[in-house]
Amino acid sequence: MSLRALVNGYGFLGRRVARALASGKVPGVKLVAVARSTGYIHRPGGLTLEELEGDIASLEGFVEGSPISLLEDGKVDLLIELTPTNLPTGEPALTHIKTALSRGIDVVTANKAPIALAYRELTELSRSTGALLLFEGTVGGGIPLVSLRRFCLRGDEVLSIRGILNGTTNYILSRMHFEGLTFELALREAQNLGIAERDPTLDIEGYDTALKLLILANSVMGLNRRLEDVRITGISRVTADAVSLAKEAGLAVKLIGSVSPDGHLTVAPRLVKLNDPICVHGTLNAVTFRLRTAGDLTLIGEGAGEPTVTSILNDVWEVVTVRGRLTGARGT
Amino acid sequence: MSLRALVNGYGFLGRRVARALASGKVPGVKLVAVARSTGYIHRPGGLTLEELEGDIASLEGFVEGSPISLLEDGKVDLLIELTPTNLPTGEPALTHIKTALSRGIDVVTANKAPIALAYRELTELSRSTGALLLFEGTVGGGIPLVSLRRFCLRGDEVLSIRGILNGTTNYILSRMHFEGLTFELALREAQNLGIAERDPTLDIEGYDTALKLLILANSVMGLNRRLEDVRITGISRVTADAVSLAKEAGLAVKLIGSVSPDGHLTVAPRLVKLNDPICVHGTLNAVTFRLRTAGDLTLIGEGAGEPTVTSILNDVWEVVTVRGRLTGARGT
Repeated sequence: MSLRALVNGYGFLGRRVARALASGKVPGVKLVAVARSTGYIHRPGGLTLEELEGDIASLEGFVEGSPISLLEDGKVDLLIELTPTNLPTGEPALTHIKTALSRGIDVVTANKAPIALAYRELTELSRSTGALLLFEGTVGGGIPLVSLRRFCLRGDEVLSIRGILNGTTNYILSRMHFEGLTFELALREAQNLGIAERDPTLDIEGYDTALKLLILANSVMGLNRRLEDVRITGISRVTADAVSLAKEAGLAVKLIGSVSPDGHLTVAPRLVKLNDPICVHGTLNAVTFRLRTAGDLTLIGEGAGEPTVTSILNDVWEVVTVRGRLTGARGT
Repeated sequence: MSLRALVNGYGFLGRRVARALASGKVPGVKLVAVARSTGYIHRPGGLTLEELEGDIASLEGFVEGSPISLLEDGKVDLLIELTPTNLPTGEPALTHIKTALSRGIDVVTANKAPIALAYRELTELSRSTGALLLFEGTVGGGIPLVSLRRFCLRGDEVLSIRGILNGTTNYILSRMHFEGLTFELALREAQNLGIAERDPTLDIEGYDTALKLLILANSVMGLNRRLEDVRITGISRVTADAVSLAKEAGLAVKLIGSVSPDGHLTVAPRLVKLNDPICVHGTLNAVTFRLRTAGDLTLIGEGAGEPTVTSILNDVWEVVTVRGRLTGARGT
């Protein structure tokens, strides 16, 4: 029997993930419910692609309010939590995830806040009930990092991490580097293109990078850090002069999140050599794991948007595999 | 009960993998036999680190000849085949692997030849007996590519591949680029440093890249190609002038292996932009998967030597996981 999935949060990612599931992209999963901020729709027989085409609020059977009753009443086996990141509380996602895990319902999420803010609590809850908690979509968009460490680097050890984890600030710094723009001009351009938000504080002051770094430190390196342990400096005081001096010296200014070998977490603008693999431009993200045996391993890809769908679907696939609903997917 | 492993091939990688297993780096595996070209040693109770310190041929119980009887007589559950790549036959590794798979014995290998030359035959054999065939160590050294596609990108599709898959040629081209050396001088330097072999034909004429590309095309993209389908041009006719003209234009000459979206395999020197993520230098390897949803995903790392141990151990870990000898390794 297929796993019954609820997609909670129906923005850019939610719509795409719901459509992918309704079109059968992951065998062994049935999309039985979708929720947005105003309410939810529940179809035990499965939602169709046609039903997802318009506004779900106009579908017959749309219920106003929170879909949490679907979790409480055992109507779903898998919560795919895609509501937006909300600081400082992580709510309502945190409550949704706790509710699911405590009832043994598996969780896949791309919402950074609950994982960054309550990693230890949530993983302990997951362990105690046996429910899975997967969150590849929270860091690095379509770049596999958590699952990479878990399935491709067993038997090695991650000693340190260094990365560009925020596409917005990387876009701004790249425009300053290549076009000589000031920070203010580059930010305005990014806002006009929809790359930066109206209130860009979380990105440009380094908090978004800090949340992602925290998730990597705790999950990939097995540390136990909290947001207050991260030393955070943003890019708003990076001057055009500093960027141009760096450029003349064959360097670029990049907002780097790093976990040092002794476990210190830092987010700050750093000088990076132009031929360092991590020195990528535009909205790209790049992360280097320093491994004890394999040395430096760098991954580069799009850090947000559509590519994140791949990370979410891979996590869903993993849930289906572990729950034994996918025959022959391993060992072929 | 632990899986009984045979490490066949006792060179650089074989020694390191044997030591890692004897020191318990992968739980659920016991190293019961090690073989080199002249003979093998079999200890049903497990080989110790101390025994592996000297020459295994001097150990009591060392048997001259092939260890194939250990496979035939059901003395091992896992063959770790690390003999050197041998063209054009792929032997004796091909026979070892076939013998193991046909008896239901799982195989992990870093030997390119059998996988490149007989991919279809070996995977069909593996499917028919249920024995696993894992070969992450054959491509990209410590860079996970086969397992990345298998465990981290499910639900997406690899449309094309482009990569620098040979560290020796990349070292030579990098020295030509940065120091203005001729091909002949750079090759001689690489030979003196032990980066290039005395007979460097396989590397510099592109055959090593072609074998790896073939493995990726067949395993990661699910194609059914043979070595004769690959158009191969090496780097021996790349001139210092060509490299320096490219450099002036912000480009570098790189030996690129590519699988096009319509399934054509090509190995040839190509011009690559200096800020293309794939444009790495020295002995580094880099591979870009173009994915339908996640876009371009690039991995960069060391393509040979010690890092390959990580790929091999991860494959061993996977065998142990699938065989259920590792409790709690998934879903935690």
